Amino acid sequence: MVNERMKELGSRRSVIRELFEYGKLRKQEIGEENVFDFSLGNPSVPAPDAVRERLVELLQESDPVKLHGYTSAQGDLGVRQSIADYLNRTYGADLRADCFYLTAGAAASLTVSLTAILNPGDEVILLAPFFPEYRVFVERTGAKVIPVPCGAPDFQPDLQALEDAITKRTRAVLVNSPNNPTGAVLTAGNAKGLSEILRRGSERIGEPIYLIADEPYRELVYGDTEVPYLPNDYENTVVCYSFSKSISLPGERIGYVMVSPRAKDFSDLYAAVCGAGRALGFVCAPTLFQYLIPSVLGMTADLSVYDTNRRLLLESLTAYGFSVVPPKGAFYLFVKAPDGDACAFCERAKAEELLLVPSEDFGCDGYVRISYCVTTEQVERSLPAFQRLARSYGLG
Amino acid sequence: MVNERMKELGSRRSVIRELFEYGKLRKQEIGEENVFDFSLGNPSVPAPDAVRERLVELLQESDPVKLHGYTSAQGDLGVRQSIADYLNRTYGADLRADCFYLTAGAAASLTVSLTAILNPGDEVILLAPFFPEYRVFVERTGAKVIPVPCGAPDFQPDLQALEDAITKRTRAVLVNSPNNPTGAVLTAGNAKGLSEILRRGSERIGEPIYLIADEPYRELVYGDTEVPYLPNDYENTVVCYSFSKSISLPGERIGYVMVSPRAKDFSDLYAAVCGAGRALGFVCAPTLFQYLIPSVLGMTADLSVYDTNRRLLLESLTAYGFSVVPPKGAFYLFVKAPDGDACAFCERAKAEELLLVPSEDFGCDGYVRISYCVTTEQVERSLPAFQRLARSYGLG
Repeated sequence: MVNERMKELGSRRSVIRELFEYGKLRKQEIGEENVFDFSLGNPSVPAPDAVRERLVELLQESDPVKLHGYTSAQGDLGVRQSIADYLNRTYGADLRADCFYLTAGAAASLTVSLTAILNPGDEVILLAPFFPEYRVFVERTGAKVIPVPCGAPDFQPDLQALEDAITKRTRAVLVNSPNNPTGAVLTAGNAKGLSEILRRGSERIGEPIYLIADEPYRELVYGDTEVPYLPNDYENTVVCYSFSKSISLPGERIGYVMVSPRAKDFSDLYAAVCGAGRALGFVCAPTLFQYLIPSVLGMTADLSVYDTNRRLLLESLTAYGFSVVPPKGAFYLFVKAPDGDACAFCERAKAEELLLVPSEDFGCDGYVRISYCVTTEQVERSLPAFQRLARSYGLG
Repeated sequence: MVNERMKELGSRRSVIRELFEYGKLRKQEIGEENVFDFSLGNPSVPAPDAVRERLVELLQESDPVKLHGYTSAQGDLGVRQSIADYLNRTYGADLRADCFYLTAGAAASLTVSLTAILNPGDEVILLAPFFPEYRVFVERTGAKVIPVPCGAPDFQPDLQALEDAITKRTRAVLVNSPNNPTGAVLTAGNAKGLSEILRRGSERIGEPIYLIADEPYRELVYGDTEVPYLPNDYENTVVCYSFSKSISLPGERIGYVMVSPRAKDFSDLYAAVCGAGRALGFVCAPTLFQYLIPSVLGMTADLSVYDTNRRLLLESLTAYGFSVVPPKGAFYLFVKAPDGDACAFCERAKAEELLLVPSEDFGCDGYVRISYCVTTEQVERSLPAFQRLARSYGLG
């Protein structure tokens, strides 16, 4: 009757969404304050005041016909130029306005880029663990996911395994740094190593292998961590960016695809990105938020709460006896299931009203993800539950 | 290297977009006021003041974490309930919040609905003339477009031809009333006739044929024209709606899919709509504009300028000797090419700095579309050019 695959995707929500919806119901049952919901990557800090101020200013001072009108499909030219200028200034890049295609957020950036590049039967290498929707986005195009595991303790890519996974059908490698769910950030050395492998691979198969860099967490890093700007290392790079996490606007759906001007067949690839946006029904990115962009480039919400939560959880969970991967960026903590069974671990956590996401759907067994983009007070109040959970495994 | 079809869609812009971009350049060359750009359906009247007021209020008084945060994928529950209540009140419908899936505008509503319903090889009947992107959206799913012509002078559907076009592979009929490009509005009698045919057809082939009603122009009607609410006539209806045209927010990308609660396999179909939104990367509709909806339901921008333009063009072009279809709704005028050659007509119009869209891409030969969503002053100043154009054909 209907498309079976779509029905399945709509009926079987992602594990994350499922847990989030469970949490909503559970909060109604036992009170909001008694459920420790670490399921969703929904920023808990408000957008900077400058966002509200600029939006109000735009609404009060702009011609509404222009402010809310269609832009070119690829986005307003001035806005795209401002992003290029900012990135050139910040990373010494060589980008132009016409490298950018503004989108309705990172998920849209990914579906547009993948649709632009892929044909049925093609292969996309994902570094595991990876955000589970990557699989949905890749498979919708008829292409195939090839997972390449990143190992504990630092979850850096295994470059040899990556090179071995390249075949004649490899069209793209998707990298997410800082990473959801581990918080790992690709090191400068590994960024270079990755580029060399992709360059060699492209040469070997006679076709460019595109590096798709999904970067919504670029600005969310701790200490002196630096996130390599991949287009500077590798020419065939497509960056998928979103303003969701850095300035706490996840629901507003605003981001971009950046096609490196040094990519092989740049103009074909950029045209295909525009064509994919058109075919998928995006028309143009939401205009009010397009016009917001120039004034918020380089700005972040107050991210210090994430750092506080990170330290608190890292210290406490380690003290309770859990084995934890110290995150360098993003707002996720990846915790090893003490007996290796992530699903059982999550069920036991649920009994303590802790909502954690098991790692299976991330393409990696035996871990759980804690999204610590919540208030510090919530983290503090959750600690006894984590301690009880540890004890139930005989830890600590 | 890249997906060839996407490259083609991105390199070969739609005829409408192509003309719009030509217009932008031409305005730079000879001055904005000297180009009469009737190419794009971009509303020329501002959004109602209430839109700005409510947006500012939301920004100043709401918690930004909630205001800009993710909603459920199908949209905020309260917002969906308010739309259901409004439609039930207005059309005596029987809709619930869970019939609605909020989207990033009408194009998104269409790609989501089509992706939910179609499999490769399926057939979708389009009543021609139709908005050219329908073809792009249908073909992206691997399904096939079956055009059924609507004839002059009133461009109502030929119900017999429609019935004859139904085959075992027919999964949907897409109807756009008020129509882009003709301005025709389906009569109550034809809405009932259409329903009977679809009911008979569904029975004959043993599968529901879905009626997809694309309704961004619902509120844009002239005189005492009434637009039948198709879910009241036919159970297997999916409405694709957008707030773009009625309240002049085309760039903001906000609309919905409504699945009739009486549709066969309602829950499968609704699940498939949610699944399609997920697979295409929509995540959720832009949240600030979701929260705007309850306060603008039933509201329209000041549409009187469109009516003034319509009368002025209808009267003048008829007087100059053109054969014109009087529009009942939307803001398009469909004009017959005097010698039947629409492309030649558009080229000749271009020489007079009149930008009109030829009808070929609308699945119908021999007409041009005038988008009269411009200022009345622009229409007035364009009339001598139309008159010269008429004379060049020996009319008047």
